[in-house]
Amino acid sequence: MHRVNGACDRVTTVFFLYWPISCTSLPLPLDIVHILTIVCFAVHFTISFSTSHSPQFPFPTMAEKVVLHYFNGRGKMESIRWLLTVAEVEFDEVHLTTREQFLKLLGDGDLMFQQVPMVEIDGMKLVQTRAILNYIAGKYNLDGKDLKERAMINMYSEGLRDLMEMIMILPFTPPADVPAKLETIQSKATERYLPVFEKALTGAMHLVGGQLSCADVELLECTLMLEEKFTGILSQFPNVKSFQGKNITFKPAITRFLQPGSKRKPQPDEDYVKTVLAVFDVKLLSR
Amino acid sequence: MHRVNGACDRVTTVFFLYWPISCTSLPLPLDIVHILTIVCFAVHFTISFSTSHSPQFPFPTMAEKVVLHYFNGRGKMESIRWLLTVAEVEFDEVHLTTREQFLKLLGDGDLMFQQVPMVEIDGMKLVQTRAILNYIAGKYNLDGKDLKERAMINMYSEGLRDLMEMIMILPFTPPADVPAKLETIQSKATERYLPVFEKALTGAMHLVGGQLSCADVELLECTLMLEEKFTGILSQFPNVKSFQGKNITFKPAITRFLQPGSKRKPQPDEDYVKTVLAVFDVKLLSR
Repeated sequence: MHRVNGACDRVTTVFFLYWPISCTSLPLPLDIVHILTIVCFAVHFTISFSTSHSPQFPFPTMAEKVVLHYFNGRGKMESIRWLLTVAEVEFDEVHLTTREQFLKLLGDGDLMFQQVPMVEIDGMKLVQTRAILNYIAGKYNLDGKDLKERAMINMYSEGLRDLMEMIMILPFTPPADVPAKLETIQSKATERYLPVFEKALTGAMHLVGGQLSCADVELLECTLMLEEKFTGILSQFPNVKSFQGKNITFKPAITRFLQPGSKRKPQPDEDYVKTVLAVFDVKLLSR
Repeated sequence: MHRVNGACDRVTTVFFLYWPISCTSLPLPLDIVHILTIVCFAVHFTISFSTSHSPQFPFPTMAEKVVLHYFNGRGKMESIRWLLTVAEVEFDEVHLTTREQFLKLLGDGDLMFQQVPMVEIDGMKLVQTRAILNYIAGKYNLDGKDLKERAMINMYSEGLRDLMEMIMILPFTPPADVPAKLETIQSKATERYLPVFEKALTGAMHLVGGQLSCADVELLECTLMLEEKFTGILSQFPNVKSFQGKNITFKPAITRFLQPGSKRKPQPDEDYVKTVLAVFDVKLLSR
């Protein structure tokens, strides 16, 4: 949307700025034509630069508040809460607590594939975690400067999502299977995932392009989740540990998000699991 | 990458085209200045328009051939083969047949998270299906005209990926569980997924923005997969069936891809399953 607006605004700007100069019927002296030409180029350059770097040029649209529809727990929504926080976007939450609420959303046609998370943003009702994350990352310049950077960010993000989903599903795993699952997660984390990030963060504070991206935000979220389950797991990964420390204090919004009373959710407990199962009307989540 | 290049090229172009005009020391008559100004604006407009619509302006870089590293079967690579075909990008394939080949790739550090698919493209070794698909879709303008269109495309794609992954995992499911899984897939396809596409395709040939996107390509792939498993499943979804027919003939490359002898892979058979399990050194894939 803003890109379309941006393009229209540029056309309008260029038209009003340049058209009088190129109109040969105006009896302007040569010097004034030259000076106006230079001024117009300068203005146009500034505009071109701004539009290609800021999605909200020239006037941010007055958007309604972002509303998240999900359980009062982490699950698939937590990465979205993280990303909105880092983008410094205010949001409200509607917590699903009963099956009736969920059926109402379904009945109203608000959930494209009959699933949550759902996020109301910029007049849309977005579903599918990755679609939502991509939209936010794109809108707030957290997805790299070009397609190659975005590809790197996507690769890191997808790896982190695989790892976080293994942790996310734990509360819905039969208790007898949990120790084995935990062992698998720990070994994959230390052998498959963390070494990649340790290497990528050699001498760098951010994973891609020397600037904050959604991959950094997901790595921060993921490392904190890992430490909750496996104390000291980052001790063999000093770059990752240092990245975590630096990024926690990188933005006041992140620091605040990690304080008690923020919109960050705690680790899932029995109540969370009961609510999810009741809302979805299932005995055990099968996948 | 091409976006960065594009920006540099524009700066250069604008500098060489406009600078002589704005140089007041040139003894040019007023009329010539005006005519040159008009010409420059026309050229610049054309360039601006081209760069914002074609990622390969002004000179496509000579890229090496795209190489896919995967099994000689569909799996997670098939959607990538589809998308490259639609983008009319030539590609080669290296088929994994032995564990040694896989260990060699791991040893060479070619697989970021020790997984395939991996695709060599534009000097990168991309992994993670979605990262690869996003890169191709972005490079070949198959991801919408703006962020909102991309969000819609992402939502449809993610739904289709969920559905296709259920089918993809079938050959690795214990035979006794297959009938129940098939029933689940069929009911989800007809109750959760196909109605969404049936509605979106009312009076439209493409899912988003009146032009071909990666979501169309995935819907085409998915509906053909569904029909292989459930004959006549599209009979209740006339818009989807009509979409399928129109898109098969939309590009000669798609028609060719559906002919025998193309790079499209057949349904997985016992040999495919055996090879996958041997290469990954597992008895049964667990998730």
